[in-house]
Amino acid sequence: MSQSTSQSSPPTAPERTLSVCRAAARFCAQLGWAPVREMPLPNGRRADILALLPDGGFAVVEVKSCARDFLTDGKWPEYRAFCDRLYFAVDLDFPEELLPQEVGLLIADGPDASLVREAPAHPLAPARRRALLQRYAVVAAGRLAALQDPAGQSEIRAALRVE
Amino acid sequence: MSQSTSQSSPPTAPERTLSVCRAAARFCAQLGWAPVREMPLPNGRRADILALLPDGGFAVVEVKSCARDFLTDGKWPEYRAFCDRLYFAVDLDFPEELLPQEVGLLIADGPDASLVREAPAHPLAPARRRALLQRYAVVAAGRLAALQDPAGQSEIRAALRVE
Repeated sequence: MSQSTSQSSPPTAPERTLSVCRAAARFCAQLGWAPVREMPLPNGRRADILALLPDGGFAVVEVKSCARDFLTDGKWPEYRAFCDRLYFAVDLDFPEELLPQEVGLLIADGPDASLVREAPAHPLAPARRRALLQRYAVVAAGRLAALQDPAGQSEIRAALRVE
Repeated sequence: MSQSTSQSSPPTAPERTLSVCRAAARFCAQLGWAPVREMPLPNGRRADILALLPDGGFAVVEVKSCARDFLTDGKWPEYRAFCDRLYFAVDLDFPEELLPQEVGLLIADGPDASLVREAPAHPLAPARRRALLQRYAVVAAGRLAALQDPAGQSEIRAALRVE
């Protein structure tokens, strides 16, 4: 593993997370789900991806880079309260038998991901859905606005609280 | 006017539009309104800025770079159907007496803009507001997702129809 070879070394955990996250976001877009990464939720957690579906539903996709990343996270069930369906996204090296059956599963293979197990639906209450859509929309628009105005970026991010 | 001097030449109309648009977007953010630029509307028009307010309201800000830009646009009243309040944004050189009193007015001075006249409210019907929020959210999130994935950018833009 530590040998120096002509091949590239295995990806680090952050590289793996980024790669799976990108593949999962692309999967979402292919279905017409609009993904927002690193979405801050009202409970103080951040969802790796919160995607808005064409029917107004929300999916959370939680990326797990490796077994340890999953085993040390006891809080993933808290995402259920802020989505209609919950998925894990992992890559081909992940020991998928570790993952609970009651969560959907995306598997990333390079830049693309595919749906391996559909997630059960647990519809949000209308008031929470409305509040979540408002939050989602402000975070997405605020980050975009900040990127379009480099000189005003920090002011815009602070005013719209998009972190 | 056409003399060559050591000072920079007056801004072109596109430069003026961009400058006013940026100042108006910053004004929105300062109020906690999340601005999306060049927002495609269901009637085929594009709003220069569609901003989502903290209370769920929508404001359209239509940028006018010069008198001609205003006088040749007979269609601006069509934006009313997709917002709760309608504003023009112009710069200090614009002959503001041309503008109708029943539209709000922002005046840009360099990178900032201020509110000169509040716009009358004409609240959206609930079904249209819901549909507009979904559209706004998908456009903002889709453009952001495309920027975050250069290799998948055109695919994401096409799938989420964010133009």
